[in-house]
Amino acid sequence: MATTQTLPQVDQSHKTVLEPIATPSRLLFGPGPSNADPKVLQALARSPIGHLDPLYLELMGEVQELLRYTWQTDNRFTLPMSGTGSAAMEATLANTVEPGDTVLVAVNGYFGNRLADMAARYRANVQLIEKPWGEAFSLAELEAALSEHRPAILALVHAETSTGVCQPMDGVGDLCHKHDCLLLLDTVTSLGAVPVFLDQWKVDLSYSCSQKGLSCPPGLGPFTMGPRAEEKLVARSSKVPNWYLDVSLLNQYWGSDRVYHHTAPVNMNFGMREALRLLADEGLENAWDRHRCNAEVLWAGLESLGLELHVPEALRLPTLTTVCIPNGVDGNAFRLHLLNEHGIEIGGGLGSLAGKIWRIGLMGYNSTPKNVELLLNLFESELPRFRENVAVAA
Amino acid sequence: MATTQTLPQVDQSHKTVLEPIATPSRLLFGPGPSNADPKVLQALARSPIGHLDPLYLELMGEVQELLRYTWQTDNRFTLPMSGTGSAAMEATLANTVEPGDTVLVAVNGYFGNRLADMAARYRANVQLIEKPWGEAFSLAELEAALSEHRPAILALVHAETSTGVCQPMDGVGDLCHKHDCLLLLDTVTSLGAVPVFLDQWKVDLSYSCSQKGLSCPPGLGPFTMGPRAEEKLVARSSKVPNWYLDVSLLNQYWGSDRVYHHTAPVNMNFGMREALRLLADEGLENAWDRHRCNAEVLWAGLESLGLELHVPEALRLPTLTTVCIPNGVDGNAFRLHLLNEHGIEIGGGLGSLAGKIWRIGLMGYNSTPKNVELLLNLFESELPRFRENVAVAA
Repeated sequence: MATTQTLPQVDQSHKTVLEPIATPSRLLFGPGPSNADPKVLQALARSPIGHLDPLYLELMGEVQELLRYTWQTDNRFTLPMSGTGSAAMEATLANTVEPGDTVLVAVNGYFGNRLADMAARYRANVQLIEKPWGEAFSLAELEAALSEHRPAILALVHAETSTGVCQPMDGVGDLCHKHDCLLLLDTVTSLGAVPVFLDQWKVDLSYSCSQKGLSCPPGLGPFTMGPRAEEKLVARSSKVPNWYLDVSLLNQYWGSDRVYHHTAPVNMNFGMREALRLLADEGLENAWDRHRCNAEVLWAGLESLGLELHVPEALRLPTLTTVCIPNGVDGNAFRLHLLNEHGIEIGGGLGSLAGKIWRIGLMGYNSTPKNVELLLNLFESELPRFRENVAVAA
Repeated sequence: MATTQTLPQVDQSHKTVLEPIATPSRLLFGPGPSNADPKVLQALARSPIGHLDPLYLELMGEVQELLRYTWQTDNRFTLPMSGTGSAAMEATLANTVEPGDTVLVAVNGYFGNRLADMAARYRANVQLIEKPWGEAFSLAELEAALSEHRPAILALVHAETSTGVCQPMDGVGDLCHKHDCLLLLDTVTSLGAVPVFLDQWKVDLSYSCSQKGLSCPPGLGPFTMGPRAEEKLVARSSKVPNWYLDVSLLNQYWGSDRVYHHTAPVNMNFGMREALRLLADEGLENAWDRHRCNAEVLWAGLESLGLELHVPEALRLPTLTTVCIPNGVDGNAFRLHLLNEHGIEIGGGLGSLAGKIWRIGLMGYNSTPKNVELLLNLFESELPRFRENVAVAA
């Protein structure tokens, strides 16, 4: 067919005339995305280079090595998946679950449920241990469930973004070894901001995101897999049922072979490289301390305003604070007011906490004393109007 | 567990001290990524906003509408997948293939093989029609295969990035209707640059990428699904076996419900919105003409230098030209010379064409008369040295 033929008329009905993009500058204090470091945004705007360019291959190695540092792991299969954190979450299950494997999911929030949904799609025999949203699991509870279900994989959420709970990890890895099961850990809201010691905790599989503790925009999903999980992957009786996330293929590109798999999102990886570089410059210990200190000032300030926090202090995530919406206050109206009048985003509740809590994130670049002060001032000055409005209306 | 406990020592072994990022400016004339429009890169560097921010939801609608224009389709399920083109490719199969479905893949290059690999992972009964790399399929060949295999889906590559062939589409959609099968079309290297009339061609499923005709960096995978494919999705007897790419879930976010699915890669979508806006400003017809005219000058120039093109003119893609590597020339050495000495990337061959061809892309922002001239001058001045070296060595 010669291309000089007459073409049909182009349909203009979906052609929209738009002005150049003019998104506002927001302060993002929700559950994520958080604001990115301006240096990271500048890196994103660099001209792309080829995904097989020797300089890009070098950059990939830098990203992998700094991810290992950030996670405190020696895992060779450590790389950012070319999707968001949810893609990396799915990758942990897609690569290791074979049909009929028992996957035990500890559910104390929204993301535990998502893990369970995903695992079932890979035809796992999914078993749940559940706790109310806002609590953590004890070793005894985990051990009882491991004994009862004898799973191939225990999936646990280190930092539950829906509740603000940080799951204590002491002893969990030993339990999993004792029960010969892999330990899969969600570190979406902890990586880079809250202490994570992946190898010391004997975690076999983990995933995270770019847009929280790492101060990069959303779009990449850090993924890591240890030797015991690798063994399970190698021993599979069938191909990974997800081509895009198949680590055995991805490792031919990220490993020394450099075999083309898919065209990497090079600009997002420019940003990730800068984000990890800045984190290493600060030092993990300093970043963790900064998040902890700023969170403690926020917690004390909110409580001094008479607000109740949803999670007991010992289990609180420094990255994400859940605040009980006071009786009679329309939480959604307050959030929209902050967004529309002040350019500030905070989050609402998900699932069983919808309408009951606000979620306030102080993550990565955003975890600063100045931002804490700004938030506390806003809650002090603006929230009373929402209480009063309700009182007047009542 | 109180977080005031003593933490283990942080392992510094993977902590690398890096200089700020300093990637070079390359001219990318390979099979993609291509250079992005500087306006798109500036959009990428905007401060992120929330994925549920009303202004972001508005931007999502703009992206969807302009994708419909670019593909010439009314499909409501039209959106960029939060991954690269390969993720969108996988999404077309993941959502529609049920175990045991026959998927007929027309393979005349690398990407046909990839479709076959993916479809098998979704437990399709995969059947192939094959042609040498560099040829296209005739209607008679397609009809014979449809009659023989009676597939649920025919998967076809419109623009084969590995060979430079543009598959003629006249009559293919009618054949698929006659044989009651869905038509899945790869438009990775055609969208925005080569005439595509998705609805007139009766295509049911298609995918593309951001980094070629759209002049955006890689990282998003445009996806579209028509009413007949939607029906197959709705009639599934089991959940889509891929949570991340499940269109029934994604449509709750991209549709009017706006239910949270995953945290969108907002900055990449800023870039996509600008890329599509710029394309609509130029007008599809003008963009197609520009690609065609520049390619024709490139083809004539290469032939006047004595080079042979791999694909007959009637089937040539304006976006990607495959050039036979002359006898005795080390094609890889020439590519590395262009990259290292001139900052210019061209591609090598894949699969059965490895070592036999170069792939020269002129896509999106890069399709200009100036770039054609630059390429032809380089081939004229540099290639003889590689011929001579070989002659001397022989």
